[in-house]
Amino acid sequence: MGIKVVRFERENREQWGVVSDDQILVLTNTYKSLAEFLEKGKEEAALIQTKEHVETIPFNEVTILSPVTKPARIICQGVNYSTHRSETGMEASRPPYNMIFNKADSSLSGAYSEIERPSHVKLLDYELELGLVIGKEISEAVEVTDENLHQYIAGLVIVNDVSARDVQLPQGQWLKGKSYRTFCPTGPYLYLLDKEELPFIHDLELDLWVNDELRQSANSSQLLYKPAETLTDLSEVMDLSPGDLILTGTAGGVAMNLTPEVNALIANLSIPYQQKLELLVENQLKSGKYLKDGDTIRCKIKSASGEIDLGEQLNTVVMSKEINLSISNR
Amino acid sequence: MGIKVVRFERENREQWGVVSDDQILVLTNTYKSLAEFLEKGKEEAALIQTKEHVETIPFNEVTILSPVTKPARIICQGVNYSTHRSETGMEASRPPYNMIFNKADSSLSGAYSEIERPSHVKLLDYELELGLVIGKEISEAVEVTDENLHQYIAGLVIVNDVSARDVQLPQGQWLKGKSYRTFCPTGPYLYLLDKEELPFIHDLELDLWVNDELRQSANSSQLLYKPAETLTDLSEVMDLSPGDLILTGTAGGVAMNLTPEVNALIANLSIPYQQKLELLVENQLKSGKYLKDGDTIRCKIKSASGEIDLGEQLNTVVMSKEINLSISNR
Repeated sequence: MGIKVVRFERENREQWGVVSDDQILVLTNTYKSLAEFLEKGKEEAALIQTKEHVETIPFNEVTILSPVTKPARIICQGVNYSTHRSETGMEASRPPYNMIFNKADSSLSGAYSEIERPSHVKLLDYELELGLVIGKEISEAVEVTDENLHQYIAGLVIVNDVSARDVQLPQGQWLKGKSYRTFCPTGPYLYLLDKEELPFIHDLELDLWVNDELRQSANSSQLLYKPAETLTDLSEVMDLSPGDLILTGTAGGVAMNLTPEVNALIANLSIPYQQKLELLVENQLKSGKYLKDGDTIRCKIKSASGEIDLGEQLNTVVMSKEINLSISNR
Repeated sequence: MGIKVVRFERENREQWGVVSDDQILVLTNTYKSLAEFLEKGKEEAALIQTKEHVETIPFNEVTILSPVTKPARIICQGVNYSTHRSETGMEASRPPYNMIFNKADSSLSGAYSEIERPSHVKLLDYELELGLVIGKEISEAVEVTDENLHQYIAGLVIVNDVSARDVQLPQGQWLKGKSYRTFCPTGPYLYLLDKEELPFIHDLELDLWVNDELRQSANSSQLLYKPAETLTDLSEVMDLSPGDLILTGTAGGVAMNLTPEVNALIANLSIPYQQKLELLVENQLKSGKYLKDGDTIRCKIKSASGEIDLGEQLNTVVMSKEINLSISNR
């Protein structure tokens, strides 16, 4: 069975542990990064359940941190479920290329952290995604298959790819609208996969609720570009290191809903930016699905039978207290 | 006067030094990253010219490495010169937002390295850019002005933002087409700025030649979003750390030339991808300006009077020996 590794803060100290029922078994060693934990801490984590005199602490008495630590590459697959392709006005079928973008690592936050909406953002959206944590250095083109995938993927995490659609869409390149601080709730824990459990990666249920209304419900079997071929694709372009995070894309059910007409508006270079932005916001707010301050988002990923369970995220939206100093970000 | 810091390899060992005429004054300490050099090595670098018994080695007898080291964030400003905006079919004037994207840090390579063209890339392009190296941690919104800019920028580098247009443009998100290994020649050295020299940042001449034909010639005074306001913008979105790199955008003169008709082709969702790609390649190759194997690119950035001189890059294009394993990258 896999191991549920958690990073947490207690009395201003960061520690690592293994989750067992509602308790955390505290590791005696500390690790300054996920990469260091993956290199040096996995054995201690694997053996802790067999040891005597282990310090335990209730899961809900500490602050749970993202198990993925900075610096990390956060590489994302775009429009990788047919149901999400349809709602963005694209052809639903598998596209001829694996669309890749990324998020800044400073967007990482914990599974129970607040999501801070920048005051100028009106189209705040959620995207539940299966996150793959890299377990092995990739520095050249490699052929990753389901047979050797366990060498490259250390474990799985729940990730919410929070997105400011009114920054992401009209500005064209997605990095900024996807990267605000707190826009990447990750965890609660890193599920370290047993080799035998790897096939479950293709059959995990993903569910997201906003204020207890089910908005997204999908299965990882629906991924258009699967993890192995995605790592092969990426290996031909860039390096990946232990502790890096791959987001595999989101399914249908997000707040954003783009028709061909709205996409034509976004692509139209002759409409002034401010006017385009206002038209987009007006059109999108009609659905009533975008996140508002005070909304809570709950996310779960698990196998149908419950053998693999990545836990549950619960994040509340608040308005960021940061002041906008720059005109262009308003 | 500023200090020209160089990272180089000799006998399989990485070392740091200070360039003086055609010699490298070798630092006795080594630093495993640019961040570590900026924290611990600047004093040694500043004092080395006053010391006796310093080891020296001719500049051209070592392998010059990128002074920017992995891991690093490489954040790029898009279409930030009017001359480049025009050739991409956009309105030439300053846009209402600072367009931001990024490159993978594994694209970093040295100032005299080969640029490896992936075998499927037909539209290989160059982009000479002024690179800003971050000198101070940014972890919240800060107001950066020309008065405090010296606290945030440690120094300047020449960067060539090499781009595979036939990946970048039809796939929409730019990360992949900008990130192939060797696509970010950086250096030859990091010019550590004196505080008094900072105003020169607004008056640097940038010139790029392909096979001795001048293709790009600009002045950093033409930047639409200036360094200080760009750092303010970025600080509201993401963290930046010492050793990170900001590319300030390229001027006109690249191989790419996009008319409104070509942009309409790229944005047209109803044309099949393969057909779109072929039409784009056919249209773009007409100019004869895209890079071919064997081409050499020479880049210089300096102040008109020569007080500030970031050196010269010289890179040759070769076909990558890597095999394409993945269908979607072909």
